[in-house]
Amino acid sequence: ELQLNLEQIEKNGYDHFMLKEIHEQPDAIKDTYRGRLLLNDGIIKMAGIEDNIERLTSAQRIIIVACGTSWHAGLVAEYIFEDLIRIPVEVEYASEFRYRNPVITPNDVVIAISQSGETADTLAAIKLAKEKGAFVFGVCNVVGSSIARETHAGAYTHAGPEIGVASTKAFTTQITVLSLIALKLAQFKGMLSASQLREYIAEMEAIPAKVEECLKVDAHVKYISSMYKDSPNFLYLGRGYNFPVALEGALKLKEISYIHAEGYPAAEMKHGPIALIDEHMPVVVIATKRGHYEKVLSNIQEIKSRKAKIIAVVTKGDTEVREMADHVIEVPETLEGLTPLITTIPLQLLSYHIAVMRECNVDQPRNLAKSVTVE
Amino acid sequence: ELQLNLEQIEKNGYDHFMLKEIHEQPDAIKDTYRGRLLLNDGIIKMAGIEDNIERLTSAQRIIIVACGTSWHAGLVAEYIFEDLIRIPVEVEYASEFRYRNPVITPNDVVIAISQSGETADTLAAIKLAKEKGAFVFGVCNVVGSSIARETHAGAYTHAGPEIGVASTKAFTTQITVLSLIALKLAQFKGMLSASQLREYIAEMEAIPAKVEECLKVDAHVKYISSMYKDSPNFLYLGRGYNFPVALEGALKLKEISYIHAEGYPAAEMKHGPIALIDEHMPVVVIATKRGHYEKVLSNIQEIKSRKAKIIAVVTKGDTEVREMADHVIEVPETLEGLTPLITTIPLQLLSYHIAVMRECNVDQPRNLAKSVTVE
Repeated sequence: ELQLNLEQIEKNGYDHFMLKEIHEQPDAIKDTYRGRLLLNDGIIKMAGIEDNIERLTSAQRIIIVACGTSWHAGLVAEYIFEDLIRIPVEVEYASEFRYRNPVITPNDVVIAISQSGETADTLAAIKLAKEKGAFVFGVCNVVGSSIARETHAGAYTHAGPEIGVASTKAFTTQITVLSLIALKLAQFKGMLSASQLREYIAEMEAIPAKVEECLKVDAHVKYISSMYKDSPNFLYLGRGYNFPVALEGALKLKEISYIHAEGYPAAEMKHGPIALIDEHMPVVVIATKRGHYEKVLSNIQEIKSRKAKIIAVVTKGDTEVREMADHVIEVPETLEGLTPLITTIPLQLLSYHIAVMRECNVDQPRNLAKSVTVE
Repeated sequence: ELQLNLEQIEKNGYDHFMLKEIHEQPDAIKDTYRGRLLLNDGIIKMAGIEDNIERLTSAQRIIIVACGTSWHAGLVAEYIFEDLIRIPVEVEYASEFRYRNPVITPNDVVIAISQSGETADTLAAIKLAKEKGAFVFGVCNVVGSSIARETHAGAYTHAGPEIGVASTKAFTTQITVLSLIALKLAQFKGMLSASQLREYIAEMEAIPAKVEECLKVDAHVKYISSMYKDSPNFLYLGRGYNFPVALEGALKLKEISYIHAEGYPAAEMKHGPIALIDEHMPVVVIATKRGHYEKVLSNIQEIKSRKAKIIAVVTKGDTEVREMADHVIEVPETLEGLTPLITTIPLQLLSYHIAVMRECNVDQPRNLAKSVTVE
């Protein structure tokens, strides 16, 4: 009983840790950039980067190794890094990387991403990378964890403890840290003007309030959840920065509501998956204004003509998608590179509400452990 | 009626073009390496490679662009190239690549893969790559197609016309050509000894007979198909070279039987998808002897303990998987790098039989076109 009461206190009034952690994201993101983002000076301070700036900016290639949700954060980072610092990025499943004699040299930088810092495959991958002479940088949440200790340098997310097995605030804070790293490197390489950097920093500082605004769609998302909670399948589509968000949205639904959901880059639909679509298939499409909006519109049209049910995440005030979609969820506008921090929020809520309605154990889904410390 | 008769003649006694094309694979693979593989001389002859050998072997990076099944062949090629010639390979969805201002330089080689040679996104991707100064090499089946004309050099697959919308022989012949390219480059770079090269060539020449042997599992696969044809979901798992095969197996099932099937690298299961698994979920696992066999065994154990139904593709004579799996499909052994040419065959048959039993239009699945010539 004491345990139960403790848990209730720890949940801070929320029904589940996951919901609490979803709502903690504005603060978690703020905690993650606090002290690192100096708007007035127009600079970014990160000791782990500064101490190794030559090594990092001279990388011939950046290889990101991770698993699960962290792997999705890595895919977002691929877009951010290639856009901002123009160094080729390869994102690898840690489990595949470690067993395939990967091409890796002392000119490469490896970034390992893991909330717990204990993910077995990721840990093994960085040991391999170190043996091959690469410089290894860690992005972990748990201070003093194995991966944090095994890496040459690193930057922590400051998400606070994450109890829900399905990762939420770890994901958005990972993207926050990875964005800061890319900005810092871009600043050093002179690839952003002072005004561009200021715009980015100012927008990053606006993110917590925008995430707060996203959280207000909760009741609407709950209503949508009630309509599709019994669907045996879902598809999630996005392009560009929103492609990894689609993958992550689908993973959340798999993890906690046991619905088979799959994410795809929207344009790949025509190469096979569109055959799945009929009037029973809900399709979640991320269709924000910045980021291939026109292209996503035409993807929505194709799906619509196959009678799918369309749930679209759109930029506030959008009218075009509204005409085609069965449901729209509005989110505030932001820079294209920061979009994942915004668009992922309603998808977390969608999976949460569907799981609750299906009476699943949200915080401890079947078959899953919080951190995968064995292979 | 004349049309119908013509079709019957063209189907050569098979019920569907797809089945005919699955059975044509031993010949298609042979046609693809014929004249290029000279066992007695221990060499590989490919004019498109020879004429550009310096350019290709000095590549800093190889970027493969493709869509759908060709993208899966690209993933197989990533393993083959990195293993044999130790040049880093990045595989990109053509649709994502073309719209994201990719990092690409004159030191890069881009390989575009497309059966039709008309895939709109792939064509646009190579135009972009050419503008950025990269050397672009095409792997197409249709002679004189747009991609074949737009590339600096190329090598055709000789699969013959593929009529079934779901690609089969195009996939295996793409892997054949890509293997030959990698071998040729490895030979030039001196990365294979004469005896290693001979072993590879001899094994490649043994592949058609081994594919023929794979096709003999047809009745057994048909029986398995009858047991799972009504499953609303499937998972496909593989590691290493068999990971892309898992993706491709799942895509086939999606395309022609409209069952939501998803492929995963086996070790990623624990990071989310394993929550989907209960006694209703059939899981197809590729568990051949060469290629992380022990690791796949432990993945099978985990799935088994969640009561999934396991359909395993194993090496002939395997006893360990047989003890755990509900069904095993035996295939002949080959070199690890050539495994996809073998393991993909039973998965093609599985999707074919399930689609026929579900009375789907196998050769012209709903919503799909043979080549996607629009965005």
